[in-house]
Amino acid sequence: MRSTGATSSGCGRSWCSTSCRTSGSPTSGTSIARNSSSGCSRPGSHVRGTRRPLPARPILAPNRTFRGGSRRIMTSRITTTAATPTADLARFIVEARVPVDVRGTTRRYLLDWLGSTVAGGELRPPTIIREVINSLGGHPQATVLADGSRTSAPLAALANAAASHVLEMDDLDRASISHPAAPVVAAALAVAERDGATGEELLDAIAIGYEVMIRVGEALGPSHYEHWHTTGTAGTFGAAAAAARIGRLDAQATLSALGSAGTMTAGLWEFLADGAMSKQLHPGKAAHDGVLAALLAARGFTAASRILEGAKGLLAAMSDAPDLDALTEGLSISMERWRIENVSFKVHASCRHTHPAVDAALQLREQHELHPAQIERVEVRVYSQALGLLDGMEPTTPYAAKFSLPFCVASALRFGDLAPHRFSDQTIADADTLALTERVTFTTDPALDLLYPAAWPSIVSILLRTGERLEARIDHPAGDPESGITEADIAAKFRTLTDAILGERSAALAHAVLEAEPTPSAAAIARLATATVPSNAPA
Amino acid sequence: MRSTGATSSGCGRSWCSTSCRTSGSPTSGTSIARNSSSGCSRPGSHVRGTRRPLPARPILAPNRTFRGGSRRIMTSRITTTAATPTADLARFIVEARVPVDVRGTTRRYLLDWLGSTVAGGELRPPTIIREVINSLGGHPQATVLADGSRTSAPLAALANAAASHVLEMDDLDRASISHPAAPVVAAALAVAERDGATGEELLDAIAIGYEVMIRVGEALGPSHYEHWHTTGTAGTFGAAAAAARIGRLDAQATLSALGSAGTMTAGLWEFLADGAMSKQLHPGKAAHDGVLAALLAARGFTAASRILEGAKGLLAAMSDAPDLDALTEGLSISMERWRIENVSFKVHASCRHTHPAVDAALQLREQHELHPAQIERVEVRVYSQALGLLDGMEPTTPYAAKFSLPFCVASALRFGDLAPHRFSDQTIADADTLALTERVTFTTDPALDLLYPAAWPSIVSILLRTGERLEARIDHPAGDPESGITEADIAAKFRTLTDAILGERSAALAHAVLEAEPTPSAAAIARLATATVPSNAPA
Repeated sequence: MRSTGATSSGCGRSWCSTSCRTSGSPTSGTSIARNSSSGCSRPGSHVRGTRRPLPARPILAPNRTFRGGSRRIMTSRITTTAATPTADLARFIVEARVPVDVRGTTRRYLLDWLGSTVAGGELRPPTIIREVINSLGGHPQATVLADGSRTSAPLAALANAAASHVLEMDDLDRASISHPAAPVVAAALAVAERDGATGEELLDAIAIGYEVMIRVGEALGPSHYEHWHTTGTAGTFGAAAAAARIGRLDAQATLSALGSAGTMTAGLWEFLADGAMSKQLHPGKAAHDGVLAALLAARGFTAASRILEGAKGLLAAMSDAPDLDALTEGLSISMERWRIENVSFKVHASCRHTHPAVDAALQLREQHELHPAQIERVEVRVYSQALGLLDGMEPTTPYAAKFSLPFCVASALRFGDLAPHRFSDQTIADADTLALTERVTFTTDPALDLLYPAAWPSIVSILLRTGERLEARIDHPAGDPESGITEADIAAKFRTLTDAILGERSAALAHAVLEAEPTPSAAAIARLATATVPSNAPA
Repeated sequence: MRSTGATSSGCGRSWCSTSCRTSGSPTSGTSIARNSSSGCSRPGSHVRGTRRPLPARPILAPNRTFRGGSRRIMTSRITTTAATPTADLARFIVEARVPVDVRGTTRRYLLDWLGSTVAGGELRPPTIIREVINSLGGHPQATVLADGSRTSAPLAALANAAASHVLEMDDLDRASISHPAAPVVAAALAVAERDGATGEELLDAIAIGYEVMIRVGEALGPSHYEHWHTTGTAGTFGAAAAAARIGRLDAQATLSALGSAGTMTAGLWEFLADGAMSKQLHPGKAAHDGVLAALLAARGFTAASRILEGAKGLLAAMSDAPDLDALTEGLSISMERWRIENVSFKVHASCRHTHPAVDAALQLREQHELHPAQIERVEVRVYSQALGLLDGMEPTTPYAAKFSLPFCVASALRFGDLAPHRFSDQTIADADTLALTERVTFTTDPALDLLYPAAWPSIVSILLRTGERLEARIDHPAGDPESGITEADIAAKFRTLTDAILGERSAALAHAVLEAEPTPSAAAIARLATATVPSNAPA
């Protein structure tokens, strides 16, 4: 039995006073009807753009574990009494059935988020946020991973989301140009711990949160990204979706959660000009406000029912070229192909827009056993959409260096990787690296623009002192599903980030998140993921 | 001695770890230099628009206590090392000297906010917010007026700001089209209580918060208001300014507080289509996030330094026709004419856009001793900019009725006032009122558009059953400074709203806030303003 109105009785979880579902299982909805064997008009094409992804160029691991181009038949579509895009998303959040293999995939993104969060927790921006949170107090509902303290779910989500985004190694979705893990996993984990949700409920909420966030980001589109940090804006929807799912809100309350989330979305790129700390605040606030939106909705707080598509809603206010279809195209509670499966992992600790050039440079370095002394100059061609983040960035701070394409390429050529410790007060003052950085230039290439955001391509051309010219092109940097990245790669990245902080719990956590049955609960994950050894992460 | 860098020592207040001023007095700054006897190019013209305000048409009280059109000479202007508008505002926040008479004026706005907050606290939207806040917990730093509980300053600010905006009787600034008291006073009061600030510090922070919020709202302009609820967006700046002032942040930290505030600003009008509760959430979140921004900045959290004027900043992202000059024109730390002096009080419990028509109807009712039975029909002409809020609104709920111009005009004609109890489940179902409502129509008048927002004009034409036609025009509804409203009027409104809730403390609170010397502290105000008697406020 499932209630659908605001007068339903409580479900036994403490935050659901008026509007929650009484049944835990989201799989029994007989009202979802309308089968459609035709389904999605763009099956398998979840990366939005003007053309299909180019052939993959594997960098790290050639064996593919993701299904980038497979065709699936949609078996059912959402129908609601008020068939609007936001209402369709609300119904999807309530009733979606996450396939077993998607749950398995979700475990990798959860582990990857934990690695970034554990390793980033001691850095300055999340530390300040944590100090403020500690000064505010709150009931011990959820764990702040960096120090093991417990506070209210929204504040724990804020702290953990901010921590997860500071190393610039958390995952990245190309189609929406956003980092879904940071707000979505942080919100899901905090609410799941608070409510004692099962590990499977946690995974489902994460997969659903990704789906909603990415679709909203796609709908907002690249014009939105010119001013707005999509990780903050669309992220609030993803966090609210995950929180609402775990909180077992019904469709009406979930719609209100999305409405309140949408009317709290924020996050401007202006901070980039100062290399300031807002980039971590944005997913933090998205996670916080998404949880808050769900908590409000659970108690009957109403909000716009058409927050996305309405005349004074998000798309009208914050996008010059919204793509409304992205919200619901192919959406189905029993769909097999999920947006989360197309999200890219990051193997370098820099802005994703630098990665294709870095990978091309690494490829040339390896193929030709290059040494910096051989290099006369390096010319990089990028898609022009990358300029918004890369233009004018100088390695003035370790964080700013993550957005300096010349510094990133030079460091990769010099050291053969771009691990977190390549960005420190020492490395950005290193004379040899800076000398090589000076010899790297970059420009835009209109041919590359056409491929974005389905692919994020770059071409690196190296002129040797001998006069010889080497060139490599990367369309899908390492970590893109098309590039091939294995569970072993993801686990190895996690261990690299966390071994020094978690000690032997690092391996235990990786095993628990990737393989243990049943999936560990949020509380169990938090116990393993809490830093107790001083972090050696770079400043 | 005043520190200006991030390495200064603490000031003895618990939230200032790295960036606060060590001196409490903000009046000694010798660095503000550059006197200018020419000063502002538009002295006294703080209501922005294409022309000067029209002659006032007094409705309630003819004796003027505000200085709507007086000319003042600016005696000094802000100078900063980086002379950008946002930096100028930051310096102003830190160093402004609030004149004694402006402090006196500010007392009235503080009392008026308290009336709305006390009377609104038991209504459903702020009650739900309070339930959620109670479920989160927090250190007892500041008082939630509706129930006397104490929680963290940001959460108390959220609760009180939401409560203050639900009756639709809190103040309204025409030039910025925003309600400054809701976010600014709520934030100032919470932080002042937390920090044990003096009553004078509280008043100064409120006056400064109004100044910043209104200037930001003016800069965003009417195009912003088409999608965004300026009370939420500009309100975050006002709240941050007030919090930063009370927290004694230096100019650099205050600039960071504005930067973080700006990158958290949000609030869309889409909820209006559903008559949903977001209108209270917006000032609540503005107050919360403004306080959070100041708390972060106090600990060294950096943010965009040009959040308002930058290429990816607030004005670029959220306004089609920004007015950058509004941010700093006439701004001076020793200015005598403040934006707060031009803010309108509301004497009717409905949307401000209904007030000129309501006042015109009341004027005709009184002059001609009208009875509803005499009235054939009522035709109202309004400025078209009011349609954004009034168009299509039906009295389907007590709250929606506050935005139904026909219902408001009909109720005023029937009862002779538009007090809070005119909006209840009973009144919106009253057959006689609805019959009269049916006979009220409204349209726009291009001639009135030209006056907005300097004036908010309406013309009411009543056709009697005798064939006689009566007409009245109001450019400045009751409560506008131009209309004449006295301290006694404000106190009377406060008593009407709070006597049933506060009992004999109502008079004591009015006296304390308006007249007591020294000005009572936030803690003393909170003690008097806490509801202990069940509210009789209308549902």
